[in-house]
Amino acid sequence: MTKKIRIGLVGYGNIGKGVELALEKFPDMEGIAVFTRRNPEELDSKFKAVSLDDILDYKDQIDCLILCGGSATDLPEQGPNLAKNFSTIDSYDNHNNIPHYFEDMDAAAKNGNQVSIISVGWDPGLFSVNRAILESVLPGGETYTFWGKGLSQGHSDAIRRISGVKFGVQYTIPMESSLEKVRSGVNPELSTREKHERVCYVVEKENADRQLIEKTIKTMPDYFEPYNTTVHFIDEKTFKKDHNKMPHGGFVIRTATSANNNKQKAEFQLQLESNAEFTSSILVAYARAAYRFKTDGKTGAFSVLDVPPAYLSAKTSEQLRKELL
Amino acid sequence: MTKKIRIGLVGYGNIGKGVELALEKFPDMEGIAVFTRRNPEELDSKFKAVSLDDILDYKDQIDCLILCGGSATDLPEQGPNLAKNFSTIDSYDNHNNIPHYFEDMDAAAKNGNQVSIISVGWDPGLFSVNRAILESVLPGGETYTFWGKGLSQGHSDAIRRISGVKFGVQYTIPMESSLEKVRSGVNPELSTREKHERVCYVVEKENADRQLIEKTIKTMPDYFEPYNTTVHFIDEKTFKKDHNKMPHGGFVIRTATSANNNKQKAEFQLQLESNAEFTSSILVAYARAAYRFKTDGKTGAFSVLDVPPAYLSAKTSEQLRKELL
Repeated sequence: MTKKIRIGLVGYGNIGKGVELALEKFPDMEGIAVFTRRNPEELDSKFKAVSLDDILDYKDQIDCLILCGGSATDLPEQGPNLAKNFSTIDSYDNHNNIPHYFEDMDAAAKNGNQVSIISVGWDPGLFSVNRAILESVLPGGETYTFWGKGLSQGHSDAIRRISGVKFGVQYTIPMESSLEKVRSGVNPELSTREKHERVCYVVEKENADRQLIEKTIKTMPDYFEPYNTTVHFIDEKTFKKDHNKMPHGGFVIRTATSANNNKQKAEFQLQLESNAEFTSSILVAYARAAYRFKTDGKTGAFSVLDVPPAYLSAKTSEQLRKELL
Repeated sequence: MTKKIRIGLVGYGNIGKGVELALEKFPDMEGIAVFTRRNPEELDSKFKAVSLDDILDYKDQIDCLILCGGSATDLPEQGPNLAKNFSTIDSYDNHNNIPHYFEDMDAAAKNGNQVSIISVGWDPGLFSVNRAILESVLPGGETYTFWGKGLSQGHSDAIRRISGVKFGVQYTIPMESSLEKVRSGVNPELSTREKHERVCYVVEKENADRQLIEKTIKTMPDYFEPYNTTVHFIDEKTFKKDHNKMPHGGFVIRTATSANNNKQKAEFQLQLESNAEFTSSILVAYARAAYRFKTDGKTGAFSVLDVPPAYLSAKTSEQLRKELL
C-alpha cells in the first residue's frame, strides 16, 4: 500500500472540525494530530490532541499542516512561525494584505525548505482560479464577482456586538437585476449598492429598542451603510429553526467580445449548504498539492494560481488523461 | 521592451483564422507565419504564408506552433513530426485516443527537447480543468457534463452527406429537465437520450423526398438514433439568415454531499456566440504556458491539467496575487 499523506491540524474551530470530517473522503490522506493553544484534554477530536507548544516533536510525523486559524490575528503570527518547520496550507483571506503575508510565508518556507500554499478556499481560492483562467482565455472583457446568497460571518458578528441584540445573522444577496445585466454582456459599471444587498435577522433582548437597533445596523459604516439593508426582527424559536446553517455561494462571470463582435460568456457558480465544510474540503485537496510540490523539490510560498489542477487529484496523470480530459 | 512570444500557425481553416484574429488581443505575443500544405500564395492571411515543407527554416524564429488541423487525420500525423522540432499547442479532441496521442507527442517532444500541450480548448480543455478540480475538492459526489445549445460540426456534416440535402445544420441541446434534476443534487443516472436532444434544420434539393431525408437522419446509428431528434425543413433564405453562426456552450456540474448531509454544488457554464473564436483564444493563452514550461526547462507532452492558472496570464505572479487572488 502506498504511504498516506500525513496531515496535522492547527486549531479546532469551524474549519478545524470541517477538515477532520472532510479527511474521511480523502482515502490517500490521514489525520495525525490536532495542535491547539487550549488544554488538549478539552478537545473532542478523533485525532490525537496535542499542545501547540509541542508541535516540533511532530516534525517527522507530518507531511503538511492545515492552519485552521483566522486571518485577523492567528495566521499572521502562526503562519510564518510554522512555515519554517512544516509545509502548510492556510485560508488567509485578508485580500489587501495578501502580498505582505505571501512575502512572510515565502521567506519562512524557503528558510526551512518547506512549501506553503496560502489563501486557499473559494474566495480567495477557486474564484481566483476562475478569474485568472477566464481573464487569460477571454482577453478584452470584464470579470465580475458576486457573493451569496450566503451568511457572512463578519457582518453577523457586527450585528451581535450591537447593544440590545440577542441573536443575529446577516445574508449577503447578489442583486438579480445586476447579475442579469452582467450576463447580457453589456459590461456595466456597478456600484457597491448595485451589486449586493444585505438582509439581517435579529432577535432582540427583552425591552430593547428595535428602532435603535435597526438604525445602528443600517448606518454602520463600511459594513452596512453602502448597501441596501433590510432588518427583520424574529423570535428566538424561528431564529434557531431557520438560521442554524452556514450557506454561501457566489458567481464569477466573465464576458468578452471576440472578433466579428461575437459575445462570449463564461460563468462559475457555487451553491453551498455549508461554507465551512466546503472550505475545509478544498484545504485538504490543496494539501495534496503541497505534498507534491515538496516531492518535486520546490520550496517557498505559492498560491492556488500556481497549482496545476492535476496536483489536486488522487488520480495519476494517466488516469486523469483517460477519465477526465 | 520585453521580447514577444513568437507564434507560428499550422493550417488556416476556422481555427487558424480564429487564432490570427485572437492574437490581436494578446499584446505579449506575435504571429510570425502561417504554414500551409496549400500554395502559400493562395492564403489571405496577414501573416507571412509559408509552405509546410519549409517549416524547419523557421526553427529559430518561432517559440511555439499552434497546430490548427483536425483530430481525424491532420494531428496524428503532423503532431509528432512537428513536436520533434517545435513546441506545440493543439486541440486534439478524439477522447478515446488521447492516451495514445499523448504518448506519441511526449516521445517526440522529449526527443527534441520541446514542450507540447495537447487537447487544448474547452472540451477537452476548460471543462476538463473544471472536472478535475471539482472532483478533487468535492469528493464523494458526481460530475455531469452537458453540451449546448450549440452547433455540432460533425453532426451537421453527417446531415449534409445525405442524398437530397442542400444545406443542413444540427444543434445539440441539453435537456432542461435533466439539468434541473442534476442541479437538485439527487445524482441521477441519465441515459444518452435523457441528457441531450438534437434539432436539425434542413434545406432540401429540388424534388427531394422530405420524408426519406427525415427518416435517414433520425435512424442514423450513433449520430442520431440514440437521441430524440427533430428535423425542420426551411427555405434557403431563412437558413442563410438564421444559421450562419457557430454558437456553442455547455455545463460542467458537480454535486456532492459533505458531512452532516449538506448539499454542495459547483457549476461551470459557457455560452459562446463563436465556438471557433473561443477555442482559438484558448489555444493562444496556452501557448504562453508552453513558452513558460520551456523557460522552466521542462520537456515532453502535457495536458491542460498540468498547467498552473498563472502560466496562462500575461501578468506576473505578484500582479496576479495583488489583483486576482
